[in-house]
Amino acid sequence: MRLLITGGGGFVGARLARTLLARGTLAGQPIDHIALADQAAPPADLLADGRVSARVGPLLDQCAALADEAFDGIFHLASAVSGECETDFDLGMRSNLDSTRALLEALRARQQRHGALTRLVFSSSVAVFGPDASVPMPPVVADDTLPAPQTSYGMQKLVCEHLLADYTRKGFVDGHAARLMTVTVRPGRPNGAASSFFSGIIREPLAGVESLCPVSADVRHPVSSPSSAVAGLIAVYEASRAQLGGRLALNLPALNVSVGEMLDALEQVAGPEVRARVRFERDERIAGIVANWPTGATAARAAALGLKPDQRFTDIIRQYIDDCRQRPDAATTLKGLN
Amino acid sequence: MRLLITGGGGFVGARLARTLLARGTLAGQPIDHIALADQAAPPADLLADGRVSARVGPLLDQCAALADEAFDGIFHLASAVSGECETDFDLGMRSNLDSTRALLEALRARQQRHGALTRLVFSSSVAVFGPDASVPMPPVVADDTLPAPQTSYGMQKLVCEHLLADYTRKGFVDGHAARLMTVTVRPGRPNGAASSFFSGIIREPLAGVESLCPVSADVRHPVSSPSSAVAGLIAVYEASRAQLGGRLALNLPALNVSVGEMLDALEQVAGPEVRARVRFERDERIAGIVANWPTGATAARAAALGLKPDQRFTDIIRQYIDDCRQRPDAATTLKGLN
Repeated sequence: MRLLITGGGGFVGARLARTLLARGTLAGQPIDHIALADQAAPPADLLADGRVSARVGPLLDQCAALADEAFDGIFHLASAVSGECETDFDLGMRSNLDSTRALLEALRARQQRHGALTRLVFSSSVAVFGPDASVPMPPVVADDTLPAPQTSYGMQKLVCEHLLADYTRKGFVDGHAARLMTVTVRPGRPNGAASSFFSGIIREPLAGVESLCPVSADVRHPVSSPSSAVAGLIAVYEASRAQLGGRLALNLPALNVSVGEMLDALEQVAGPEVRARVRFERDERIAGIVANWPTGATAARAAALGLKPDQRFTDIIRQYIDDCRQRPDAATTLKGLN
Repeated sequence: MRLLITGGGGFVGARLARTLLARGTLAGQPIDHIALADQAAPPADLLADGRVSARVGPLLDQCAALADEAFDGIFHLASAVSGECETDFDLGMRSNLDSTRALLEALRARQQRHGALTRLVFSSSVAVFGPDASVPMPPVVADDTLPAPQTSYGMQKLVCEHLLADYTRKGFVDGHAARLMTVTVRPGRPNGAASSFFSGIIREPLAGVESLCPVSADVRHPVSSPSSAVAGLIAVYEASRAQLGGRLALNLPALNVSVGEMLDALEQVAGPEVRARVRFERDERIAGIVANWPTGATAARAAALGLKPDQRFTDIIRQYIDDCRQRPDAATTLKGLN
């Protein structure tokens, strides 16, 4: 089978590609080829695999051609992140909404020209949830909580969920939508996401660098490890419509954890000197965005697919440390760890 | 003040225009001008009013120019109807989604160029609600019921609700969104709406014509009279953000009534011979769409604005008969009524 991963050069996309290549199969079919579409070239280890090709450039420019290409399945992860969508509204509308619609239109054209229904996993986000004056958000959001996005990023993800559901209902694509929790610990540099600090307060101290935490220690948030997020995307791809339990997006499993608990876990894994590298310095812009996010999430439909949340934040930190050790070419280093 | 009504040549739009012209004010301001934008020219009585102008043509072509026009408020009613959106997917996406986005972009450009925030009332629809396998729809939907559209029309309305909410949050427009219930009794010919029969089973018998009812008599549905719908749109325009109670769309008041109760009311108003002109002939396509609609709606936020549902379906029928008598140029006639 031939697969396409949009955002395939990114952190989650590249990890998904590595996991799929290591498995060798998806939904019982051997994986012959994975194309990675992204603004930048994918990591060298992926390009070195004979089954991988790269498509570098804006997704919006790549979509039309997909109408005549034979991809059996697509993981659509490409997205501008929340912080940059707040700063640059047009960028978010183009990258998140227009690109997704162009992708859906290309797959609809493929279905109509060639009779081929493409399975499309869309990575939505817990950012679809928020409070509106008209409807208080429950502290812990469920699959069927009413979404009320408080960021343009969240709005764009929610709109794409509903576009996908209707293109699926019409038989244009076979859409499966999953809401990712905040994936942590991300390697590399801080990015424009308002949630970036959820990785920064672990990654930077482990690299011997001071990190600023822009919110208070009692802020709670639903997170998942990179491997859990990837496992969720694969399970959602492989699930039948009946197993998914509907066309609407489902929540992926979350570990609901406070910033203070994350730092306790950091101390437990790496010691008090490492934890001491985190300094609290409130950033009103970030804190304001985060205050409108849910403090936790449940994932009943994902649980029915056999997906489980990460059990302990210490495990998530150890996964990150293992990743750094296995891939010493990564930008992020570890300092002062035994 | 200067107002624009998109869909201003249509049934609800023209009635809204007449009501506003008769009031002479909106939100305490004298109404100097109302522009009516529609595919077809508005009714002659409106064009005869010196305060009215017409803009005939596709809304999508008219939007860009709005960036440099000084409209204080806009009622955005223009829409392709549910039946035609199911038949012609592209038409619905263009008429309902692309046109609304182009309107929002024009008003955003106006705000950025001229510093003027335009109040925009968006007419959404009870069609945003539906059942998904993942979440059973309550029989009676409330303001905060999770929407799960089962038609492309409903999806497009829901997507526009969320676009409007985010453009409002960003300060690009002052968006107020209200979900219209099924407006009945509509004059004229049956249209492409799947809900068209909710008017047809009253209008046709009153005109001496046989009418086919495509669903069974026990089908229940939330409806409103034309005057209630117009009163709702005006109240939602005039409400402050605090009075609206949030950025998300609110339900307008509904009379929750069964087809059988509608026909009982018809008999009460017009006699058994008129009722006998309705014949039940099931249409699986229509019945399938209607089966996915709510059987009733509540409207707590609209009630807080002082809006009340129609109390009796007989009143709604009498409103229609009065309209026909007051406007004998209407296409629809009355036959055999005393």
